[in-house]
Amino acid sequence: LAGVMAVELVEDEECWRQITEYFAHRSYKLSPDNRRQALVPVGARPIRNLCGSAPGLRAEVHRATVFCMPGVPFEMKAMYAESVEPELRQAAGGRSVCARTLQTFGQPEAEINRILGDMMRPGRHPAVGTRASNAVIGVRVVAPGDSFVAARELVERDLAEIRSRLGDLIFGEEDDTLAVAVGRLLNERNETLSVAESCTGGMLAKLITDVPGSSAYFVEGVVSYANEAKTRLLGVPAELIAAHGAVSAEVAEAMARGCRERSGADYALATTGVAGPAGGTAAKPVGLVYLACAHARGTNTNKMRMGETLGRESIRVRACRTVLNMLRRHLLAEGAGARG
Amino acid sequence: LAGVMAVELVEDEECWRQITEYFAHRSYKLSPDNRRQALVPVGARPIRNLCGSAPGLRAEVHRATVFCMPGVPFEMKAMYAESVEPELRQAAGGRSVCARTLQTFGQPEAEINRILGDMMRPGRHPAVGTRASNAVIGVRVVAPGDSFVAARELVERDLAEIRSRLGDLIFGEEDDTLAVAVGRLLNERNETLSVAESCTGGMLAKLITDVPGSSAYFVEGVVSYANEAKTRLLGVPAELIAAHGAVSAEVAEAMARGCRERSGADYALATTGVAGPAGGTAAKPVGLVYLACAHARGTNTNKMRMGETLGRESIRVRACRTVLNMLRRHLLAEGAGARG
Repeated sequence: LAGVMAVELVEDEECWRQITEYFAHRSYKLSPDNRRQALVPVGARPIRNLCGSAPGLRAEVHRATVFCMPGVPFEMKAMYAESVEPELRQAAGGRSVCARTLQTFGQPEAEINRILGDMMRPGRHPAVGTRASNAVIGVRVVAPGDSFVAARELVERDLAEIRSRLGDLIFGEEDDTLAVAVGRLLNERNETLSVAESCTGGMLAKLITDVPGSSAYFVEGVVSYANEAKTRLLGVPAELIAAHGAVSAEVAEAMARGCRERSGADYALATTGVAGPAGGTAAKPVGLVYLACAHARGTNTNKMRMGETLGRESIRVRACRTVLNMLRRHLLAEGAGARG
Repeated sequence: LAGVMAVELVEDEECWRQITEYFAHRSYKLSPDNRRQALVPVGARPIRNLCGSAPGLRAEVHRATVFCMPGVPFEMKAMYAESVEPELRQAAGGRSVCARTLQTFGQPEAEINRILGDMMRPGRHPAVGTRASNAVIGVRVVAPGDSFVAARELVERDLAEIRSRLGDLIFGEEDDTLAVAVGRLLNERNETLSVAESCTGGMLAKLITDVPGSSAYFVEGVVSYANEAKTRLLGVPAELIAAHGAVSAEVAEAMARGCRERSGADYALATTGVAGPAGGTAAKPVGLVYLACAHARGTNTNKMRMGETLGRESIRVRACRTVLNMLRRHLLAEGAGARG
């Protein structure tokens, strides 16, 4: 930046004070290299970093305003929100874009495209598009406008139409995950959840506890990778495993039921399958997963056959999402029953 | 693409056959929209998609060769490796770039930069750079060359120097994670691991079981979010929790010890802390995490104080990585002892 501006780099006193403070506060050892982080091109202004040591920079270069931010994503995001976005917003002089996303689960992208076909025509205003990521299909509506309010009005009209067409396929908005949607429903009902995982190996509990405040409804998780652990921690009879194999609807059901009973949670979810890449057989190929959802009136099970080309990560993610969606649909159906 | 090429779109018979086959194989319902996926600009060539329904396209446009690939990342990656990369490699006519990465954990980026300072000078050949991501610091060495072998030779000379300077800070190469490094050490020793998690909520088990083949050494995980679960599943005395609080070195140690004893694994790791954003107090602020590693000769504990500005995700990731690194260092020290 100093090169482009054709100026010298000088140490900024305030910058250096903030860096030393940051390190002292964390009992980190300051290295001589950190001193370089306090160098600022003459005429540029340092931007305070609230989450790390390296400050940002703001400079005018010819007709451009240049913002330099740290490369560490969470530092960059915090600095952008705090110090960059407000200036950009002001520079746009009111003109704005409104973009909103609805998240769906349960139908492939092609089916969502069919249902929304007329709204997705190229050139239509607002623009409606879909994006698939491991079986979650996001529907995004984007409109530019002379003001944010004008743009938002157009977008919201489309969102209402999309909601009426897709109904319960929609589980949330923007960054919502299925775990967020399930958490919301459990909170409303003041009910609790536990999970028992084999092939998903902790990923299901992780997705649930990614949600801030999940400790209000999440009781416990058990990752019973070894068969012996399924018996000791969940009470799955060893004979059941011997008779059907660990990857079976019977074992998924017993895991969910055992987990629910032992943890005392209102609901328990279970996964068992072959995530690959090794461990598949002709009868139980990579991508075969059994899911179960235990509740007060019984246990629902589900069988997924995913192609092994999907890969270990996607097989595990889709298994987690599908079993969360089983619980979501169960909670919605119960809610509808209670209201009916 | 057809617009740029100024040609018609026509249905490709072979494409359509592959799409219908893909759907039939998975018992998916074919939608009329899928037919559009079989359209190919006249003169372009479809590229077979081994992981999804939408084929890619390869076309010559003026002096350029254009490859269109599906947007779903795993479909795109598979298609790139199978059908695009070989052609690009050939087109480069032998000239090549060699890039290798070493992964380190245990020192901040500034300290790694200090140790490797002379090798990281701008303009040096090969180029050596670092990149930090939640306390994992990657060191990347890049060299272009007239052949891959020539480039690789330069890179490997640097890698040897970096290895001798950084020693045990290096836990792996390229995409290796700390869980991969720990898995390798456990496999070598034919030993096993279990985990007991509170604040990391399944993330630690997830990171361990992300590694293909982890079932060889991973016995089980317990996500004891509720205090009662810590007592029932891990044998942590309720009085200990009452005396020190769930977020304490004492409880972390008892969790790891209980997990190791009950699961029969050689090692057990435990986490307990305040991941935030809520739940922090003056005495136990957001970002405070206690870690424990239980082994045959006792239990090591560790206290982390991360700033709450780091955010829930990073606090949890860093807690998982730090406790995996505790086990890695313990295994390395034991190995060195056995050899000594």
